[in-house]
Amino acid sequence: MTDQQVFIWESEVRDNETDLQGVVNNANYFIYMAHARHKHLQSLGIDFAKMHEEGCDFFLIKSEVNFKAPLQSGDEFVVTSKMQPNGRIRFDFVQDVIRKSDNKVVVSAINTATAVNIETKRPALPDKIKELLAD
Amino acid sequence: MTDQQVFIWESEVRDNETDLQGVVNNANYFIYMAHARHKHLQSLGIDFAKMHEEGCDFFLIKSEVNFKAPLQSGDEFVVTSKMQPNGRIRFDFVQDVIRKSDNKVVVSAINTATAVNIETKRPALPDKIKELLAD
Amino acid sequence: MTDQQVFIWESEVRDNETDLQGVVNNANYFIYMAHARHKHLQSLGIDFAKMHEEGCDFFLIKSEVNFKAPLQSGDEFVVTSKMQPNGRIRFDFVQDVIRKSDNKVVVSAINTATAVNIETKRPALPDKIKELLAD
Amino acid sequence: MTDQQVFIWESEVRDNETDLQGVVNNANYFIYMAHARHKHLQSLGIDFAKMHEEGCDFFLIKSEVNFKAPLQSGDEFVVTSKMQPNGRIRFDFVQDVIRKSDNKVVVSAINTATAVNIETKRPALPDKIKELLAD
Repeated sequence: MTDQQVFIWESEVRDNETDLQGVVNNANYFIYMAHARHKHLQSLGIDFAKMHEEGCDFFLIKSEVNFKAPLQSGDEFVVTSKMQPNGRIRFDFVQDVIRKSDNKVVVSAINTATAVNIETKRPALPDKIKELLAD
Repeated sequence: MTDQQVFIWESEVRDNETDLQGVVNNANYFIYMAHARHKHLQSLGIDFAKMHEEGCDFFLIKSEVNFKAPLQSGDEFVVTSKMQPNGRIRFDFVQDVIRKSDNKVVVSAINTATAVNIETKRPALPDKIKELLAD
Repeated sequence: MTDQQVFIWESEVRDNETDLQGVVNNANYFIYMAHARHKHLQSLGIDFAKMHEEGCDFFLIKSEVNFKAPLQSGDEFVVTSKMQPNGRIRFDFVQDVIRKSDNKVVVSAINTATAVNIETKRPALPDKIKELLAD
Repeated sequence: MTDQQVFIWESEVRDNETDLQGVVNNANYFIYMAHARHKHLQSLGIDFAKMHEEGCDFFLIKSEVNFKAPLQSGDEFVVTSKMQPNGRIRFDFVQDVIRKSDNKVVVSAINTATAVNIETKRPALPDKIKELLAD
């Protein structure tokens, strides 16, 4: 994998996403990161509906998230998404949420996914993902 | 700390919390766990607004979450919250989300928090939390 | 229809649903009311998935909502749902959101729905709904 | 008021905003419209925090919303916001949500707001709003 394969998605904080202190509720960072992952996979030609028809479902199995600083109402941000292998049946999305005003990484995370063969119920990465994860 | 100090909060999945596959969007587990933590602290007499006036703010600094099975629309669930020390300036909320129909742990997590002195900007657990975390 | 057919659903405000002023974001009342409508229809034996298989989809086509007072973090509330006919191809859910501490109606609304025949794309209430709406 | 004073805000549907049918949950249109109203007022130099300090709070008191077609996952959309007077102590935000792919108005709404003097608890539009609403 090369650096070019880091996907980025940009957006801004919506007012309903902030809490009593005026900072973004932590749950929203997971929403932001999930959206960036979906867009990332789409950009690679991976369509969840089509994969499902072909007998394969994706699942997030683990999130490790570090909260370093808060976003506030109106802040613009970038979410990155980089895929890397994690054993034979898992892969990681290494992700940062970056505040655009000062390029500060406000959240960094490793989100681990797997794919499951719908018939056998066993983890099985589709070839397309294996190719993406190979050098 | 004793087992009696495990706090539990019960609720049910709302339809808007499910995704295209009819299962709960992962971000909602963070919402559920955050709500249970707030209720837990409230039950211990800790009020965020009052702590803030006394010069102390709480922050979540890390989440480690394992997704084991999905909740679906209409499922009733229990969220647990147990506090334990994590060094001198941090404490953990050990939390499970449990499906009521079969008592399955669908999500398990360690959510790490700290408290910051608003004036000095330095981490500093208030005495009340220190007492709670002591044996 | 008789008064007994007023459906009620109870819940409490979750912290992530409040805004900078500590009051519930207006959008959440729509979430509460939608959930109560779904539970209401379920209680009458109407299942969206099954109706869809039988060729019928439901849609909300209009909401008229009056905001009278705000719910706040921690408030417990009741949402009512009463169905009544609105012409031949529409029906209304008359709904209130009531604060439990003082029984104040904080939001009152009329949410108008219709059902569409998936093949013909034309509005067509299923017999089950017609019966419910008839005296 | 002139046509130039129609404010527009653009965004895209996030995956977590869709329901079992793959279409946007109705509550999200209220979130979109609220965000556009806040941005609209900000663009006019009206800051909620500052107004509050000056003794004035804004409230939404009524929403009339027509749902004409659904947005789906990935759709880009525009939300418009136009202010107009509604009696002496109220003003309306006339708003449309427009799908960018075909310029279809998917939601149209009138959202009515008022401002309240915090001391007297009586409705009272601040001069700035009165000027905006005057021809």
